[in-house]
Amino acid sequence: MNYFSSDFTLGILGGGQLGKMLLTETRQLDITSKVLDPSAKAPCRIACNTFIQGDLMDFDTVVNFGQDVDVLTIEIENVNVNALESLEKQGKIVYPSSKTLRTIQNKGRQKLFYRDHNIPTANFTRFAYTSEINDAILNNTVNLPFIWKSTQFGYDGTGVKVVRSEDDLSSLPNVECIVEDLIDFKNEIAVIVSRSSNGEVKTYPLVEMEFHPEANQVEYVICPARLDPSIAKKANDIALKVSNAFEHVGLLAVELFLTKDNTILVNEVAPRPHNSGHYSIEASYTSQFQQHIRAILGLPLGKTESKVAGVMVNLVGAEGHTGNVIYKNLDTILEMDGVSPHIYGKKQTRPFRKMGHVTIINKNVNEARKIAEDVKKKIEVISDKTN
Amino acid sequence: MNYFSSDFTLGILGGGQLGKMLLTETRQLDITSKVLDPSAKAPCRIACNTFIQGDLMDFDTVVNFGQDVDVLTIEIENVNVNALESLEKQGKIVYPSSKTLRTIQNKGRQKLFYRDHNIPTANFTRFAYTSEINDAILNNTVNLPFIWKSTQFGYDGTGVKVVRSEDDLSSLPNVECIVEDLIDFKNEIAVIVSRSSNGEVKTYPLVEMEFHPEANQVEYVICPARLDPSIAKKANDIALKVSNAFEHVGLLAVELFLTKDNTILVNEVAPRPHNSGHYSIEASYTSQFQQHIRAILGLPLGKTESKVAGVMVNLVGAEGHTGNVIYKNLDTILEMDGVSPHIYGKKQTRPFRKMGHVTIINKNVNEARKIAEDVKKKIEVISDKTN
Repeated sequence: MNYFSSDFTLGILGGGQLGKMLLTETRQLDITSKVLDPSAKAPCRIACNTFIQGDLMDFDTVVNFGQDVDVLTIEIENVNVNALESLEKQGKIVYPSSKTLRTIQNKGRQKLFYRDHNIPTANFTRFAYTSEINDAILNNTVNLPFIWKSTQFGYDGTGVKVVRSEDDLSSLPNVECIVEDLIDFKNEIAVIVSRSSNGEVKTYPLVEMEFHPEANQVEYVICPARLDPSIAKKANDIALKVSNAFEHVGLLAVELFLTKDNTILVNEVAPRPHNSGHYSIEASYTSQFQQHIRAILGLPLGKTESKVAGVMVNLVGAEGHTGNVIYKNLDTILEMDGVSPHIYGKKQTRPFRKMGHVTIINKNVNEARKIAEDVKKKIEVISDKTN
Repeated sequence: MNYFSSDFTLGILGGGQLGKMLLTETRQLDITSKVLDPSAKAPCRIACNTFIQGDLMDFDTVVNFGQDVDVLTIEIENVNVNALESLEKQGKIVYPSSKTLRTIQNKGRQKLFYRDHNIPTANFTRFAYTSEINDAILNNTVNLPFIWKSTQFGYDGTGVKVVRSEDDLSSLPNVECIVEDLIDFKNEIAVIVSRSSNGEVKTYPLVEMEFHPEANQVEYVICPARLDPSIAKKANDIALKVSNAFEHVGLLAVELFLTKDNTILVNEVAPRPHNSGHYSIEASYTSQFQQHIRAILGLPLGKTESKVAGVMVNLVGAEGHTGNVIYKNLDTILEMDGVSPHIYGKKQTRPFRKMGHVTIINKNVNEARKIAEDVKKKIEVISDKTN
């Protein structure tokens, strides 16, 4: 197929920030793109060739959207998987596949998949309803404290809760869920695997993630991870095993826990470009977004090595601010060494909403991390009125 | 002014490839953009917030376009300068200024400017008509061979001719022109100066340009130049002198000759992002496009150093091919180490038309130059039918 002709169209389900950064690459390669998103003000509204407003969870909407695209991908997992399956049956190329997505969309099924494939992951139990957990505690089949996760997708840290008492439990929604051992990890780390439809596989270097203690959101992503190379090797091998088990095509971001005794456990995966790979736009030979496109089109994969070290800071809405967004001190951070802001273009902020990110690149990873902290201290994502 | 709010609009005159690459940056920073271009199929048509089709040389069109923009810039010099002057009088911010652009637009005036400011440049004589040159040859005030240049803008090597005989002269258009000494240079080199409206100045490293022998077009741009640091220092000083003389705001690409006795002469300048800076997208801490935007908005300038070496190859239409473009072996070059193609999105090719470029990045500049040659050998910009 000639991807570089206007006869070819790449469809993207979801028009948020990940889609927007994918479109930078389709524009660079002059690949025709078409985007579906429920919001008329989606960040992808411009820069794609065709924008369709519609519900990603609606079967007919997704099937209709797919009719005139040649390859279909996603930038968000919350899409109608039955529609994807129907499009596959019709002969459309869909990456990630409906099968992969169906497994990943349900956290219980995702965990079972790891167990079935001998992929190391924290012990867990599935429950049809949260209310069933109380009995399990009484019978000592579940012990406090633990991690509770809704099996259906949450976003930005919702749907996950540390449960330390039965009181904590009573405040949770009564839904299908899993209870997972609370892992006493020393680091959260990630490996992005790129796997082309022609079978070629390349992994990005191990990154280290530092989390915001309250919001349960990634605050810094650091590449390369400041860890022993033997850890990087082990993490890389596990990530490859996960990618192969899924027979995944495209990018697969594999989030991992490194425990205090240097055991590595798979936390969860995302079958698309991921926050933990944003640093690659500035720091890597090939950005994760171009790599995803290369992979799903069966083009040769690009070099995943880094040119320089990169640290990414998420820009999230400040607490106490809801309304029209203002980026305070954006000009000030532009003065700092190797600072590259990305503003997603969402017009409304709210506490902890992902509004953008900033990448700091430097020859020295510790220096980059230091500047990242200065960036974090300076910039504020606020609204024109406080609440 | 708050550039990062939808109340602010950046206007760009010209919607070609340079505008397209500027829009990647306005998108990243979520700056609202508006583009004017005569072609409805301009590469900028998508990715800007508002696209207006219209004649860049028409006074009323440009003045009307400027009414609701806050800062106006160009991606091509062939625009109506009187309209820019009128917008400046109205209080609009225009960079480059109409004054700078008026001087640069006419090659005779540009050369006089260098002479007036003691900026080293090849000796020259101005003529109102090409036909007057014959008398000057007879009177020995002009000696063959020489360079003939139309004072009005050419593009992609047109409007410039090496004249070795009176026969060569007779084939030239009878227009206002200059006759310039033929410089026996060993290298063509360039320095890009960024100068902010707040006075801050930063220069990019010296680059070396290799030209296509027939088309008089740049074939490779190499950063860093493989020349003695003392040359880089001297070129940098001259480029700064030129930028200061113009009191230029934005990017100024200063093209220079390095003669066999290591004298540096200014050839010509471009007051905008330039082909000689395309490598910066992948190789520099700050791409020239983001730097241009930072400069004209009075934001702090970014770091101009390189992360790695970069070599850029222009993709021009192959001889004998006119029509719907096909990029032959684009997938093959994606296999090569550190290769990043940029396809501008022009649907029609013709011999030597600039259709895209490829940047090759590598830790080693000689290795990058070698891969660039492989890229050049492999890729072909052809049409669906030969002619």
